Amino acid sequence: MSTDLDALMTELGRRARKAARALASVPSKDKDKALRAAAQAIRIDARLILDANAMDMKAAEAKGLSKAMLDRLMLDPARIEAMAKGLEEIARLPDPVGRTLAEWTRPNGMTIARIAVPLGVIGIIYESRPNVTADAAALCLKSGNATILRGGSESFHSSHAILTALTGGLLACGLPLDAVQMVPTTDREAVGVMLRLSEYIDVIVPRGGKSLVERVVNESRIPLFQHLEGICHTYVDGAADLDMAKEIVLNAKMRRTGICGATETLLVDAACAKTHLQPLVAMLIDAGCEVRGDQAACAADSRALPAADIDWSTEYLDAIISVKVVDGVAAAVEHINTFGSHHTEAIVTDNAHNAEAFITGCDSAIVLWNASTQFADGGEFGMGAEIGISTGKLHARGPVGVEQLCTFKYVVTGNGQVRPG
Amino acid sequence: MSTDLDALMTELGRRARKAARALASVPSKDKDKALRAAAQAIRIDARLILDANAMDMKAAEAKGLSKAMLDRLMLDPARIEAMAKGLEEIARLPDPVGRTLAEWTRPNGMTIARIAVPLGVIGIIYESRPNVTADAAALCLKSGNATILRGGSESFHSSHAILTALTGGLLACGLPLDAVQMVPTTDREAVGVMLRLSEYIDVIVPRGGKSLVERVVNESRIPLFQHLEGICHTYVDGAADLDMAKEIVLNAKMRRTGICGATETLLVDAACAKTHLQPLVAMLIDAGCEVRGDQAACAADSRALPAADIDWSTEYLDAIISVKVVDGVAAAVEHINTFGSHHTEAIVTDNAHNAEAFITGCDSAIVLWNASTQFADGGEFGMGAEIGISTGKLHARGPVGVEQLCTFKYVVTGNGQVRPG
Repeated sequence: MSTDLDALMTELGRRARKAARALASVPSKDKDKALRAAAQAIRIDARLILDANAMDMKAAEAKGLSKAMLDRLMLDPARIEAMAKGLEEIARLPDPVGRTLAEWTRPNGMTIARIAVPLGVIGIIYESRPNVTADAAALCLKSGNATILRGGSESFHSSHAILTALTGGLLACGLPLDAVQMVPTTDREAVGVMLRLSEYIDVIVPRGGKSLVERVVNESRIPLFQHLEGICHTYVDGAADLDMAKEIVLNAKMRRTGICGATETLLVDAACAKTHLQPLVAMLIDAGCEVRGDQAACAADSRALPAADIDWSTEYLDAIISVKVVDGVAAAVEHINTFGSHHTEAIVTDNAHNAEAFITGCDSAIVLWNASTQFADGGEFGMGAEIGISTGKLHARGPVGVEQLCTFKYVVTGNGQVRPG
Repeated sequence: MSTDLDALMTELGRRARKAARALASVPSKDKDKALRAAAQAIRIDARLILDANAMDMKAAEAKGLSKAMLDRLMLDPARIEAMAKGLEEIARLPDPVGRTLAEWTRPNGMTIARIAVPLGVIGIIYESRPNVTADAAALCLKSGNATILRGGSESFHSSHAILTALTGGLLACGLPLDAVQMVPTTDREAVGVMLRLSEYIDVIVPRGGKSLVERVVNESRIPLFQHLEGICHTYVDGAADLDMAKEIVLNAKMRRTGICGATETLLVDAACAKTHLQPLVAMLIDAGCEVRGDQAACAADSRALPAADIDWSTEYLDAIISVKVVDGVAAAVEHINTFGSHHTEAIVTDNAHNAEAFITGCDSAIVLWNASTQFADGGEFGMGAEIGISTGKLHARGPVGVEQLCTFKYVVTGNGQVRPG
């Protein structure tokens, strides 16, 4: 490994740590003003950003990148305006720093409060989408954290131009220049060095495909906010209303097939298979979804293909779904905990007892009752923007008693909601 | 590495995972009944436990273990009764599982709740103290987690006898046998295998000296609840009442010198050094504490020794303290963030503005205002027993928005409290 690279990354880390200490006590209104100034700077520098993006696009085309990759990389005035608007939205969120999370008084008269503070320095490792530069930096800044960004080499110039505009805005408002930094080299080794910089980086957020996340998981000596895969399930219980089940399943699979909250496996209770299986399978196939089913699913519709073992643990991110009949809630939970990725699962049922068993049984970050798995999203949760979804469990701080040996899950209770758009 | 060992540890992990799934939904009253039954079983098996302990003690003496180590290893009827009482105390704590941590309703009518759930499987790696076997297992069980225990080889027989009694109690109440398991070999390699068992273990808790924790930190592929060191500071501000400062400093350093919350460095504001430094240094030395001071501290009392650079980052765990004069709160915070271990820091001051600056500035899990650092303890916080203190920052679960980019700190506000006993 290059000593120069080590020295470079350490210097970035040192500066970020120093900026983080300053940022931790910046008042909300100053952070928000800086975010609005950054939004304005991005609008003003739109031309420069587009020029930089054109360079990246040209190089990417020459390298023969796929159409999907090129689309992720491409910026236009609308996307730049969306980026600026995104910063303004983040400015409008309530400041999470300084909240009193809990407070109590001891018999000796001491009061104890649990107060929200920034994590410190957050390292973001991402791929081709240059807008992540603005989004991620803004979320970190809002929460009082310094950021070290490491974008994909394809988007290097675009990200750099965005960052220049952004930091210009921050600086104008008196925030530290090093609040947001970018790794100034496309050397792949820099990622490895970054993942060992535990003295200066508190949390790493990998944003990208499975191979990127896998590398980070394997190499990082720093805690991560991450999920490797979103193998999400929708379970249609014996006590499910068929119309609601159809609406939820269609949305959960087909609204957008490429997001991590898309359902990849449909489980149908044997108790309602006779009435519900055929309409669900037919509906999916009619909607252009490939169904890979167990014997029962294949028997329900001749267009269904037989599922292989690997299908139960595959994240398609495409218009493909695996379908299986299971023997009630317990079997559904068993299947999900065995083949799932602890991300997001939904049950459709009118039976509160079955819902409770499902909610308790699934070892997943998000469990929904009568609502679509596509709601697995910070915006849809009412949290504003998100930096990603974590399937990790909790790390506590301070004394670890029984309460700190617990993590949490989100239990979503709906009455058939599906996600629009 | 031995394939047998791999197979053995994987089997332990599989069983623990299965037990954890069952434990997650065991009602509070059943867990509490099982804990009380385990306490009773420990009392009934006291003779067997003492016999096993005698074997361990004999081997330890033959190996020439230090007196301190032998004391940690030794069990007697009083310590066994304390262990049983400890289990009963944990039974009396409120159940942390199932608490609603937050709850809100979305415009579309969905309600979202954040509910406390167990972490899953917790691996505990500890050294010679056999009572950790009972304490740790009970805390994990109370919080619905399965446990894999790996004790020190010196306490193998003692821990095994305790575990046998304990699981007997659990079994009698219908809890799964594999809720608490022990690694059935003293092979050091087993620890390495355990630290890579991320599929089956959710969190590792290392309990022991710095070398144990360091090994775990370096090798673990699993998140940890841990702190490497407790280099805790007490800062006596210019606006500190001298009597309060003396009482707090004496307690913070000398109540027990061997615990992680003991103060290791005293910082005195230059603004009050003239009046406060000499009495504080003299008091400590009179109480039998070795003072390693900067120039000012050495000048204040001829018995003080000059501090070396290494002293500022040393956890003595002994009747030794480093003492330094600093230029106000900002310099104190800078010193603490540079040389400390992000564990616990105290400020003594009557000035709320300075307290606020200290509380905000220190990047530590616990910050106290006018109270002793020795309060850094789950019991003293009113949490009941603790499994350790973590200096790690937060891992969130589910969508990670700005709120989840934060961790918390404990802010303790007192009026001079010192910890008795």
